[in-house]
Amino acid sequence: MSEVQTRSSTHRLHDQLDAIVDLLHQHDDEPLPASAQETLRRQLDALHPADIAFILESLPLDDRIAVWQLVKAERDGDILLEVSDAVRESLIADMDRHEILAAVEPLDADELADLVEDLPTAMLPELMASLDSQQREQVQSAMSYEDDKLGALMDFEMVTIREDVSLEVVLRYLRRFDELPAQTDKLFVINHDNLLTGVLPLHWLLVNSPDKMVSEVMAPDVNTFHPTDDAYEVAQAFERYDLVTAPVVDSRGHLIGRITIDAMVDVIREESESEMLGRAGLREEEDIFASIWASVRNRWAWLAINLVTAFIASRVIGLFEGAIEKLVALATLMPIVAGIGGNSGNQTITMIVRAMALDQVNANAIRRLWRKELGVALFNGVVWGGVIGIVAALLYDSPTLGVVMTAAMTLNLLLAAFMGVGIPMFMIRMGRDPALGSSVFLTFMTDSGGFFIFLGLASIFLV
Amino acid sequence: MSEVQTRSSTHRLHDQLDAIVDLLHQHDDEPLPASAQETLRRQLDALHPADIAFILESLPLDDRIAVWQLVKAERDGDILLEVSDAVRESLIADMDRHEILAAVEPLDADELADLVEDLPTAMLPELMASLDSQQREQVQSAMSYEDDKLGALMDFEMVTIREDVSLEVVLRYLRRFDELPAQTDKLFVINHDNLLTGVLPLHWLLVNSPDKMVSEVMAPDVNTFHPTDDAYEVAQAFERYDLVTAPVVDSRGHLIGRITIDAMVDVIREESESEMLGRAGLREEEDIFASIWASVRNRWAWLAINLVTAFIASRVIGLFEGAIEKLVALATLMPIVAGIGGNSGNQTITMIVRAMALDQVNANAIRRLWRKELGVALFNGVVWGGVIGIVAALLYDSPTLGVVMTAAMTLNLLLAAFMGVGIPMFMIRMGRDPALGSSVFLTFMTDSGGFFIFLGLASIFLV
Repeated sequence: MSEVQTRSSTHRLHDQLDAIVDLLHQHDDEPLPASAQETLRRQLDALHPADIAFILESLPLDDRIAVWQLVKAERDGDILLEVSDAVRESLIADMDRHEILAAVEPLDADELADLVEDLPTAMLPELMASLDSQQREQVQSAMSYEDDKLGALMDFEMVTIREDVSLEVVLRYLRRFDELPAQTDKLFVINHDNLLTGVLPLHWLLVNSPDKMVSEVMAPDVNTFHPTDDAYEVAQAFERYDLVTAPVVDSRGHLIGRITIDAMVDVIREESESEMLGRAGLREEEDIFASIWASVRNRWAWLAINLVTAFIASRVIGLFEGAIEKLVALATLMPIVAGIGGNSGNQTITMIVRAMALDQVNANAIRRLWRKELGVALFNGVVWGGVIGIVAALLYDSPTLGVVMTAAMTLNLLLAAFMGVGIPMFMIRMGRDPALGSSVFLTFMTDSGGFFIFLGLASIFLV
Repeated sequence: MSEVQTRSSTHRLHDQLDAIVDLLHQHDDEPLPASAQETLRRQLDALHPADIAFILESLPLDDRIAVWQLVKAERDGDILLEVSDAVRESLIADMDRHEILAAVEPLDADELADLVEDLPTAMLPELMASLDSQQREQVQSAMSYEDDKLGALMDFEMVTIREDVSLEVVLRYLRRFDELPAQTDKLFVINHDNLLTGVLPLHWLLVNSPDKMVSEVMAPDVNTFHPTDDAYEVAQAFERYDLVTAPVVDSRGHLIGRITIDAMVDVIREESESEMLGRAGLREEEDIFASIWASVRNRWAWLAINLVTAFIASRVIGLFEGAIEKLVALATLMPIVAGIGGNSGNQTITMIVRAMALDQVNANAIRRLWRKELGVALFNGVVWGGVIGIVAALLYDSPTLGVVMTAAMTLNLLLAAFMGVGIPMFMIRMGRDPALGSSVFLTFMTDSGGFFIFLGLASIFLV
């Protein structure tokens, strides 16, 4: 038993990456000497394309290009498939026409369709001409669907069998393959008209007697999808039913492709990432080593929106300048009222958006949710608002100021709860993604609303 | 070809759920009549346990219990495994000792280990006594690992073979099974000492001649994990290498269990969910129909922290009450300075925490990232700060106020950039999760810092 084999895979990968990063760091800011290039090339050759993709993503642009040029040309295509969009752009920018054509040549139609949109458009005619007619049709089919539809993610490599043969025949047929398509866990049973009539899981093929007919053993597949299905909903079905692959059929039931768990895992990860990025107002994933200018472009729209809402909130304060001049404590206390509303409302939004993403909440539930969230807000307002009210009263020696503070905090928390439920519900009804924008709009309401409530109450009761 | 079969699975599920929800709504606030109960029971019997779990999660507590009582007892265990922790609690609370024992009886050891922590502790001795000694050992082994370790997630159902037999023998051996364990895509090859010597993917068994020996065909498995591995890192390896199952070995290489893609998909989803919840200060996932009191407990810690930081920021403003009294425009403009710093800094944190989660950034990159983020901040400060400065100068007819505003916004954006890189880096170095808390601390710095910078500059140059 070698030492390597008892070491866990996750540790081994980290060791290899550290070695490569170390090597690059020893030659920081200078070109790699030939001997080091040779060492690096050997290390890279031993790595899985996904690991090389990972290394490329972790490197600043100059190191990244240096490593990219050491990768064997025939692996370029597989690696381009694995890297993030932002990094892919930087790698393709470094390749010439000839290198790009060579890189994409070994790819399957569905993989090619993934890459096509990142390639220089001038190259497309030449690229399409290099494909045979079936491949061309498959690439065009995959490209005809939006990125979030299943049709853009399905692949065309699958094993189909007829139902009127014995398992023995199927076993003999399979032995004629050198390899089955990756992740094959079931064979698709079709009739003479290419209609899907069932599926035969590989392990049923193995545990049943070879004399049985496919039709006796196969299952009518209950998990069949359409190319127009929403990819994220299908990913949820994969998760729910622990699927590895599933057939994709057209509206008349003809088998046109299959979908695999690895594509669905990517969909799940991308969904949560785009939600996370979207909440912070990042338009797309960012290559962390991107230029300042690329980052500015990615982030400016969100900052502009926030500046506008902050400016409006500032004008709300402007309405009460007279009151603030008379009682400057108001200026000191007002950010607390606004801030607590924003925090609390964002908790409500996070919880509701998450439940919506899991389809657990429908429009009928809105009144029940409002009742609950307003209850939570009232409790927090009385307790926390009470604490801060007492502190404010002691600090400025004014019981009335304390009461105004408690009342303002409670009212702003109620506003936050009302909006925290209402905004995402409203966005869903408008057919928009509640994960994007709900939070900005809520913070705008709790800032402007908080200032208005607190300064308004103070104007009435204090000055 | 029936209509049902050409309908996509995702649509079919939604139809079924809508039917059930409709049925429940027709009898809102009253017990279901016997006939409706019978209809509902039939509908539930036809559904996958995961779908029933989904329905239970979407229902308010009273409806949820009503549906739960209609579910066949022998399916209870499978459904309990599928529901979220919060909902599981509410279901178990409705079951008596006898029902719980019956529910967990058909479960495998790893499944049982998942449930055990949610069961009433008084029941554990009785439960453990009902297991045979091998099961008991497996349950105890699974329970001995932290939830985020692989050992807590591995299962023990797998097919092992010897390397000194022919594929023909393996095929005959497999035919003695009624079913292979779910998601079996490879057989594990062990020697007489239970050491893992390789793996045999099912499709290699199928495409190779039955005369070949296992040792000729099998692959030394490069993706082997340890029970002490971090579950999320293993999930990333599954994603990277498109794995369906992988063996788990102890430190000496003995095969002790396997890990399957469905468990890893759950880990990926849970990781991103807990990050999302953590950022909004929700301690754990919340049953959206939970009581007000449960919600208050889940959320109060975060609100308390935010109140403390808001209070400190408020005291910073308090330092400058004299300046505000003389020039009340300062109170109006100061939230803009603080707000833009918080927004921009949170963009930086989101990007860096994400890159860290993907392991793409190490401590060496910190200087490079600082350079870039400070560059972005300087650009935004001059451009957006300039715009707001001009507006402020015109609004209050004071060019100096405009210059102070621009300078304060630029400085606070620089502070936000510095902290946006520095805080997550610091938390990583302290061995803490940067996704939790980074954002609160940053907002504290940009609020207090923004008020201090703006009011301080104003005190020097304006009043």
